[in-house]
Amino acid sequence: MTTPSPLSPPRRVLMGPGPSDVDPRVLAAMALPTIGHLDPEFIRIMDEVKSMLRALLGTENDLTMPMSGTGSAGMETLFANLVERGDRVVVGVNGVFGLRMAEVATRYGAWVERVEKPWGEAFTPDDFAHVQGPIKLLAVVHAETSTGVLQPLDGLRGVADRLDALLAIDCVTSLGGLPVELDRHGVDAAYSGTQKCLSAPPGLAPISLSSRAFDAVLARRESVSNWYLDLSLINKYWTDSGGGRSYHHTAPINNIYALHEACRIALEEGLDARAERHRRLGAKLTSGLAELGLSLPVPEALRLPQLAVVEVPEGVDDRAARSRLLTEHGLEIGGGLGAFAGKRWRIGLMGSACTEENVALCLGAIAEVI
Amino acid sequence: MTTPSPLSPPRRVLMGPGPSDVDPRVLAAMALPTIGHLDPEFIRIMDEVKSMLRALLGTENDLTMPMSGTGSAGMETLFANLVERGDRVVVGVNGVFGLRMAEVATRYGAWVERVEKPWGEAFTPDDFAHVQGPIKLLAVVHAETSTGVLQPLDGLRGVADRLDALLAIDCVTSLGGLPVELDRHGVDAAYSGTQKCLSAPPGLAPISLSSRAFDAVLARRESVSNWYLDLSLINKYWTDSGGGRSYHHTAPINNIYALHEACRIALEEGLDARAERHRRLGAKLTSGLAELGLSLPVPEALRLPQLAVVEVPEGVDDRAARSRLLTEHGLEIGGGLGAFAGKRWRIGLMGSACTEENVALCLGAIAEVI
Repeated sequence: MTTPSPLSPPRRVLMGPGPSDVDPRVLAAMALPTIGHLDPEFIRIMDEVKSMLRALLGTENDLTMPMSGTGSAGMETLFANLVERGDRVVVGVNGVFGLRMAEVATRYGAWVERVEKPWGEAFTPDDFAHVQGPIKLLAVVHAETSTGVLQPLDGLRGVADRLDALLAIDCVTSLGGLPVELDRHGVDAAYSGTQKCLSAPPGLAPISLSSRAFDAVLARRESVSNWYLDLSLINKYWTDSGGGRSYHHTAPINNIYALHEACRIALEEGLDARAERHRRLGAKLTSGLAELGLSLPVPEALRLPQLAVVEVPEGVDDRAARSRLLTEHGLEIGGGLGAFAGKRWRIGLMGSACTEENVALCLGAIAEVI
Repeated sequence: MTTPSPLSPPRRVLMGPGPSDVDPRVLAAMALPTIGHLDPEFIRIMDEVKSMLRALLGTENDLTMPMSGTGSAGMETLFANLVERGDRVVVGVNGVFGLRMAEVATRYGAWVERVEKPWGEAFTPDDFAHVQGPIKLLAVVHAETSTGVLQPLDGLRGVADRLDALLAIDCVTSLGGLPVELDRHGVDAAYSGTQKCLSAPPGLAPISLSSRAFDAVLARRESVSNWYLDLSLINKYWTDSGGGRSYHHTAPINNIYALHEACRIALEEGLDARAERHRRLGAKLTSGLAELGLSLPVPEALRLPQLAVVEVPEGVDDRAARSRLLTEHGLEIGGGLGAFAGKRWRIGLMGSACTEENVALCLGAIAEVI
């Protein structure tokens, strides 16, 4: 075959639902020379990543680490490890990622009860009042990337307690942009991705389990069917419980370098300042979009600052308009997903991409194509 | 918390069983700016990667692509998709990775029959003569990373045909170092990793399925329990069967950049020249090791050129010696795995790390510590 030419990816500004623009510092870290996955120096790096993830997730959980796959592998990890055949699982479904959680839990043999809400709304603890316990797991999406809705976590621990359930959240799109605070909300299990508000390239899924959740993994009747994501094995690589580290699989070394630098950037800025930046610029973007006459279907109180969702304006061709943004302005925004395909645009303002300049660029470019 | 310092990984020469040294061109490609996973330009890159992987794997299989996880995720993909509960699977077990295949297949509900051979030996077709068909899958490891043994593939298609079985191989350590030639050997399913003889960072698992194998996936009675690795879904992202590409998960963009460049380097060199380089330098390394008085337990005809396995010399402290190599010479070699822990050293000469200089460095350094 003819060998393809060297890569020369076009310049883009990534304001879709992720990946977001990656800071040059993170790209530089990713290109540092690869070292071995059992090198003592790499183990030190792993420990630093774990500590920084704990700070970002607001938790003291020992079992806090990046899984070797993208955000979806985080979701898979959670259900593969916590669900056994016949377990009852309750999932709040108000968008694509709630649907996906229900699907994944079902594939692992759970009896899944979906508590549904229209796409674009959030759950209140009362929405779960009709559910009878005991159940194994109650799962909701903290930041629904398909709808742009922020799910308040207050009160969900009480619901889970009544049902004798572990509380699990998807924080793929919230981590690094908004406070997640797992321990304050009594969350037992959470997963995220690196390519949203942490602004590292996709490829890792930070997860965290409370000791109660990890005890449930260790007490399983059957092995986890998914060997690659089996936390009882992987934890022996990421944690030294005496006797050193056990090889499980070769960790994606350079992705972990990138995550290390992305965490450093987030902590240097400070979580409060970072959340404030997302709130301030998110509000500026949504005001600007409204001034352009675009309709914002999510109630203001529930809007994700890092992901504005607007209706595709009447008479505008969704694909053609986004294609013009990409080719004429180098700007990527996201289309609608699932039931919202063709009906919504999703405009991210995540991590490194959350800047004044990008707000202005985006508003100017969208004004041209609508 | 105190934010950790910026990363500054030590200089290492990676001559363990993987990861191997990554070419600076590959690291530079990995650090190119991230673009979106549905960007038309990224889709063009995906297509180029698929074509190059086909050339490297010696196959015309449509379904040839990198999975979004490390090599172990490739193994997981194969068994998750091809095994249904109750299927009979035969695995050739002569090292850690054969054992692991048997374990993974079992977790997916297969009835696994292990055909065993002492560690350090290879199978002949006759070793499977006692197995009665029909079975679903016959699986062997092409290059056993735990023992340094090359498994000849000749004649295995005949065995699989007699058993009415799909033929699957692990080519994690062979791909990019030795000819793999899936189509010539009638292999139906194969998986590999990027961090061995392709010398890209770990994080992707190239896989390839024949149309017969993929038909078996599409004809499953039950969904694949592993949603993240479900090929029936992922193929709709990696292949346009009319109607464009469907989002499944966010691909690890920068890892795919790296793989693209690593494939380019391998194809520029040429597969024959590359295999010849591994053979020539592998022979030089093993001669040198023998001259140092080290015992090479694998018969010469079965030795992997890219991975020399020697016995830890009598009276030498395994860990202390490898630690000296690392700290005094910046040289990583591998210890023994599984039953060979403490008893073997595994010295890789893979991809970019397979150079005259590294042979000399390694022999000189080992001479000092034994």
